[in-house]
Amino acid sequence: MEIIDGKKISNQIKEEIKYEVQNIISKGDKPPHLAAVLVGEDGASLTYVGSKVSSCKQVGFKSTLVKLPENIKEIDLLSKIAELNDNKEIDGFIVQLPLPKHIDEEKILLAVNPNKDVDGFHPTNFGKMALNMKTFIPATPFGIMELLKRYKIETSGKNTVVIGRSNIVGRPISILMNLKGIPGDSTVTVVHSRTVNLESYTKNADIIISALGIPGFVKKEMVKKGVVIIDVGITRVKDNNSTRGYVIRGDVDFNSVKEKASYITPVPGGVGPMTIAMLLKNTLLSKSLLKNNY
Amino acid sequence: MEIIDGKKISNQIKEEIKYEVQNIISKGDKPPHLAAVLVGEDGASLTYVGSKVSSCKQVGFKSTLVKLPENIKEIDLLSKIAELNDNKEIDGFIVQLPLPKHIDEEKILLAVNPNKDVDGFHPTNFGKMALNMKTFIPATPFGIMELLKRYKIETSGKNTVVIGRSNIVGRPISILMNLKGIPGDSTVTVVHSRTVNLESYTKNADIIISALGIPGFVKKEMVKKGVVIIDVGITRVKDNNSTRGYVIRGDVDFNSVKEKASYITPVPGGVGPMTIAMLLKNTLLSKSLLKNNY
Repeated sequence: MEIIDGKKISNQIKEEIKYEVQNIISKGDKPPHLAAVLVGEDGASLTYVGSKVSSCKQVGFKSTLVKLPENIKEIDLLSKIAELNDNKEIDGFIVQLPLPKHIDEEKILLAVNPNKDVDGFHPTNFGKMALNMKTFIPATPFGIMELLKRYKIETSGKNTVVIGRSNIVGRPISILMNLKGIPGDSTVTVVHSRTVNLESYTKNADIIISALGIPGFVKKEMVKKGVVIIDVGITRVKDNNSTRGYVIRGDVDFNSVKEKASYITPVPGGVGPMTIAMLLKNTLLSKSLLKNNY
Repeated sequence: MEIIDGKKISNQIKEEIKYEVQNIISKGDKPPHLAAVLVGEDGASLTYVGSKVSSCKQVGFKSTLVKLPENIKEIDLLSKIAELNDNKEIDGFIVQLPLPKHIDEEKILLAVNPNKDVDGFHPTNFGKMALNMKTFIPATPFGIMELLKRYKIETSGKNTVVIGRSNIVGRPISILMNLKGIPGDSTVTVVHSRTVNLESYTKNADIIISALGIPGFVKKEMVKKGVVIIDVGITRVKDNNSTRGYVIRGDVDFNSVKEKASYITPVPGGVGPMTIAMLLKNTLLSKSLLKNNY
């Protein structure tokens, strides 16, 4: 059994990006510039955006944090987005989700210029991904693909089961794993809340990618020997022994499942750290796309 | 065993559309107007475009056939598309595929205004479909969904196996069947040329949707009793006994498989006739979308 070390790989990727940035600067060009829009004061969102900003610094990107009040009107958020779309100094930007309930997330998402949409959430980018055209891949599935690639895990013809069908993980990773390519070319099944006899699928899987958000859902009885486990779950579970008052738990019952797995991602330290690295990679890409008049 | 009668259902749909058109006209509005761009003289393409145009007449749509020479330059085709995008008299249009080899299909597809893209091939529309937003669904998968709906075939939680992963059938239908909705909510597996032990998937399937293009590929040994069979294959097979010199064959060995199926689409007369009906439906939709300043 080998542990897939997302922390290590994400650091490698950041080093590679840092090198690229130095290259860009040495040619007299400006470093990539990522903006993050944060509405309100949600604790988890603050933490995520904070890490994104500090990761930018780490690799030499410029970053801008746009903090907006919780009660901002939808129309004012839209005009802020229009501003970022037009701002030539900004290569890419993200709008941290979730947004307050009075704002229509779909409308906001559609307002982002697809060429600056480094989260890859705009339908144009999602469609390009599904049609195997060059575009921004959403950071989490992009990170999973990168882990499979760097660990040289065979995916072609393999029985891959994706647990969960969310727009940001389950659906895109199921499409990516099924497309022609390396990694890719898998036989992919998507199981979800409506699936009858879910275990009958996971038991035959060569690769399981779980993005459900239920801690400890995948147990050793549900998997076969030699399975590759990618655990995307990151649920905060109350824990009074922790100084933060909670611990992060994955979808997989790590201690029992690891005995049967050939490869497994831990939580934390698996897919999680990859997400920011791939967001940086998309920002680097957005810079070159804009330059080439994409 | 019940035969799914695509001919009958497509005629029903055309009648419904005809009724809508009369409604539109009675309110003093213009009927929907579909344009079809045909490059070159390919026999099958001529036939397809011909049926589309005559179906428009049948339901009371206006139609325009834009015939362009085989050797047209890419830039001239692009400017023709720009013209159709801007033409307020045209609600929706299609570019008949395949295009001659010297033309970049992807570039052409991206040039079509998504709001007039009644084929649903533009990445923006494909992405909206995958993200479960309101949009144009490509005609063939849209037709399959409509057949399942009108025959009240249960799909929720069912084991659905899609054979083939093309951009115009396999991938979109696999996404649609997996999305929340009726029909939908299936557990979907996509099998393809790289799949190992394909029969192990089809044998457990409650619903098989085959879009492979290999005549007679699905045999009775590969399916379980009670399976629902949707055959999207339409391959021309040479036949000297036919006056046209060929017959149309599906992916499924109909005569043997029908004994085990609960529902089955014939070829011809199953999915085929639905495709044009759903193109008309999209054109009707495009009219209302444009009217609502989509």
